[in-house]
Amino acid sequence: MGSIEKERSIVGLAATDPSGHLSPYTFTLRNTGPEDVLIKVMCCGICHTDIHQVKNDLGMSRYPMVPGHEVVGEVVEVGSDVSKFRAGDVVGVGCLVGCCRSCRACDSDIEQYCNKKIWSYNDVYTDGKPTQGGFAESMVVDQKFVVKIPAGMSPEQAAPLLCAGITVYSPLNHFGLKQSGLRGGILGLGGVGHMGVKVAKAMGHHVTVISSSDKKKVEALDHLGADDYLVSSDGEKMQKLADSLDYIIDTVPVNHPLEPYLSLLKVDGKLIIMGVINTPLQFISPMVMLGRKVITGSFIGSMKETEEMLEFCKEKELSSMIEVVNMDYVNTAFERLEKNDVRYRFVVDVAGSKPLQQ
Amino acid sequence: MGSIEKERSIVGLAATDPSGHLSPYTFTLRNTGPEDVLIKVMCCGICHTDIHQVKNDLGMSRYPMVPGHEVVGEVVEVGSDVSKFRAGDVVGVGCLVGCCRSCRACDSDIEQYCNKKIWSYNDVYTDGKPTQGGFAESMVVDQKFVVKIPAGMSPEQAAPLLCAGITVYSPLNHFGLKQSGLRGGILGLGGVGHMGVKVAKAMGHHVTVISSSDKKKVEALDHLGADDYLVSSDGEKMQKLADSLDYIIDTVPVNHPLEPYLSLLKVDGKLIIMGVINTPLQFISPMVMLGRKVITGSFIGSMKETEEMLEFCKEKELSSMIEVVNMDYVNTAFERLEKNDVRYRFVVDVAGSKPLQQ
Repeated sequence: MGSIEKERSIVGLAATDPSGHLSPYTFTLRNTGPEDVLIKVMCCGICHTDIHQVKNDLGMSRYPMVPGHEVVGEVVEVGSDVSKFRAGDVVGVGCLVGCCRSCRACDSDIEQYCNKKIWSYNDVYTDGKPTQGGFAESMVVDQKFVVKIPAGMSPEQAAPLLCAGITVYSPLNHFGLKQSGLRGGILGLGGVGHMGVKVAKAMGHHVTVISSSDKKKVEALDHLGADDYLVSSDGEKMQKLADSLDYIIDTVPVNHPLEPYLSLLKVDGKLIIMGVINTPLQFISPMVMLGRKVITGSFIGSMKETEEMLEFCKEKELSSMIEVVNMDYVNTAFERLEKNDVRYRFVVDVAGSKPLQQ
Repeated sequence: MGSIEKERSIVGLAATDPSGHLSPYTFTLRNTGPEDVLIKVMCCGICHTDIHQVKNDLGMSRYPMVPGHEVVGEVVEVGSDVSKFRAGDVVGVGCLVGCCRSCRACDSDIEQYCNKKIWSYNDVYTDGKPTQGGFAESMVVDQKFVVKIPAGMSPEQAAPLLCAGITVYSPLNHFGLKQSGLRGGILGLGGVGHMGVKVAKAMGHHVTVISSSDKKKVEALDHLGADDYLVSSDGEKMQKLADSLDYIIDTVPVNHPLEPYLSLLKVDGKLIIMGVINTPLQFISPMVMLGRKVITGSFIGSMKETEEMLEFCKEKELSSMIEVVNMDYVNTAFERLEKNDVRYRFVVDVAGSKPLQQ
C-alpha cells in the first residue's frame, strides 16, 4: 500500500503573506507513520508568538503558514508502534513536533534545547514538508510530542497550558522554585504573566504582580488572586520591597531596565526572562555579585515536564482566564491580542466552528 | 582592669591620601575581647582591590588606611570565650571581620551577603573605630572571622587563598560545579584567574583559558596546567568551542561584551562574573533563554566555605604562583600589580621584614 493514498487533504487557516491575514487553505497531512498519532483538533490557543510568525516579525516565516501551537484534540488513529495513545484519547501538542534524539539536550530529556528541534509550524519536517499548526482540522504528530490531557480537564482549559503554562512551570521547576512559601514576582500581565500568577499561586507562593501602571491592579488582586501589586514607578514601595523576592518571572516583551527588578530580589534570587528581546538588556555587575543573583531565561519546557505540569494543574484545579472564540473570529482575535485586548488568552473552538471551505 | 591599658600601639603601612602611597603609621588595636583573637601577622597577599581602596577609586576611602585582606598569622592571645583557637595556631583572616548575625544571610551562613558586613579595613568596627588590615604587625579579629590554616600549608601559599582562592571556589561550590569531568573556562588571567585555573584543575575539570591575546598562552598551558587556550578574537576556534563549556569564570575587570562567552556555554551553562564593573554589561535575551543559560556573579565566600576550601587545597596540594616580597617593597609591588606585572600574586612577608618605624 503506497503512502500517497493515505495522505489526507484537510483545511486550515493560513497566512499567505506578511499581512498576517488568515484565510482557508487546503493542504495534505502525511500518512500516519509507525510512531505517529493522527489528531482531530478540538481547540487551539492563540499565543503572541503566532502574531510574530504570521507577520514575519522574526524574518523567518514561510508561507502558506497555518499557526497554532496550543493544540488539544482527539486521537483518531495511531501508528503501529504507538502504545501510549489510542483512538478517543484527548491529547495535546505544544510548540515542538521533532528533535534530533541524539544530542546532549535530547539525551537529558530537555529536547526543547535541541539545536535541531522542529517547530509545530513554520518549520520543515523530516519528510521535507512544511509543518502546519493547530488552526486546522487535524494534525499528524510523532507520539513523543503528544501528551495526554488528564481526565476531567476541559480541552479549552488545557490548551493555554501547552505553551503559556509550561513556559512558567518549567523554570520554577528547574530552578528549584516549586516549594510553597516562596515569594515571587510576575513582571507584566499578559498571557504568560497571567499564567505565571496562576501557576505560582497553585504552588503556594506569595505573588506580587509588577507593572508599569496600576491599570491591572483590580484584575490582578481580585480576579487572578495575586497577593500584592507593585507599580514599578512607585519608588517608595520598590524600596520597601527591596531584597524580598525569591524570583521574578519577567514577561515584558520589549527592552526594559533590569536593575529595579534585580533590587527586588533576595540574595540568590532569580530574574527569569521570558521575552525574546533583540536589543541588549543591561545590568551592572555589582547588582548580581553582591547577592549572588541570577539572570536567566527559559524556553517552554520538555515533554516530560509538560506531562508533570498538566497533572499539577489538574491536581490544583488550576483554571486560566480564557475567551473562547470560533474560527471565523481568529483574524479579529489576532488584532485584539495585538492591542492586548484580551483577558488573558484566546482559545479557538476549532471543532465547534463551521467547517472551513477554501 | 580598664581596657585602655590593654590597647596596643602597633605600626602598619597606611595610605594617607588618594595618592595611594603607603608609609609607616602607628595606631592602636582594641584589647582582646571575649570573642577576639589577637594575631601576629606573618604574611599578607596583595589583591587588586587594595589598589582601588588606597586610591579611593570607589569613592569610599577613609584615611589613614592600612590595606591587606589576605592575612595569615600566628595566634598570640585569645579571649575568654574563644575555644576554637589557642596561642601558637596559624590562622587566616580574609575580607570581612564582622556581620549582623541576625539577617537572612547571616542565618544561612552566607554572611558575606549580610548588608551590615564589616570589611577587614576601610570600614568602621562595632566600637566605632576604623578597621585596619594586614600590612601591620598585628590584628585583633572576632573568632567568627578567623580560620585555621591546615597543618603543613605554608603561610605564603595560604594567604592568596583567603580572597582570590575563596572567590573562585565559592561559586563553583555553590552552583553545583565541583564534580570532576566538567569543562570550565577562565576568562582573564590575573590573580583571580590564575587561582581559577588552579582550583578548577584541582577539581578535575578540563580548563580553557580565554584571553584577548595569545601573550599568556605558554604560561597558561605550561606553567599553570590549563588544558586549552582560546583567543577570543579567533572566530574559528570560538565557533568550534560553541556550546562546550559548563561554566566560565569571568574575571575581566572592565566592560566587555558577554555574548561571545554566552555562546561558548552548553545548555544550562553559567557565566559567573567576578569583576566589579560599574558601566552596564549587555546581552540579548534569546542568548540566555535558548539554552537556559545563567548570568550570575559571586562575592568571596562564607567562613564555612573558606574552611572547606582550605582543606580542599590542602588535600589537592594546590599551590599558587606567588612572588614573596618584603614590607619595604609594598609600594613597588602595588605599582607593578597595577601594570599587571606579577605572576600572579604578591605576598608580603610581614613578619620577616625589618620592623617599621614611624
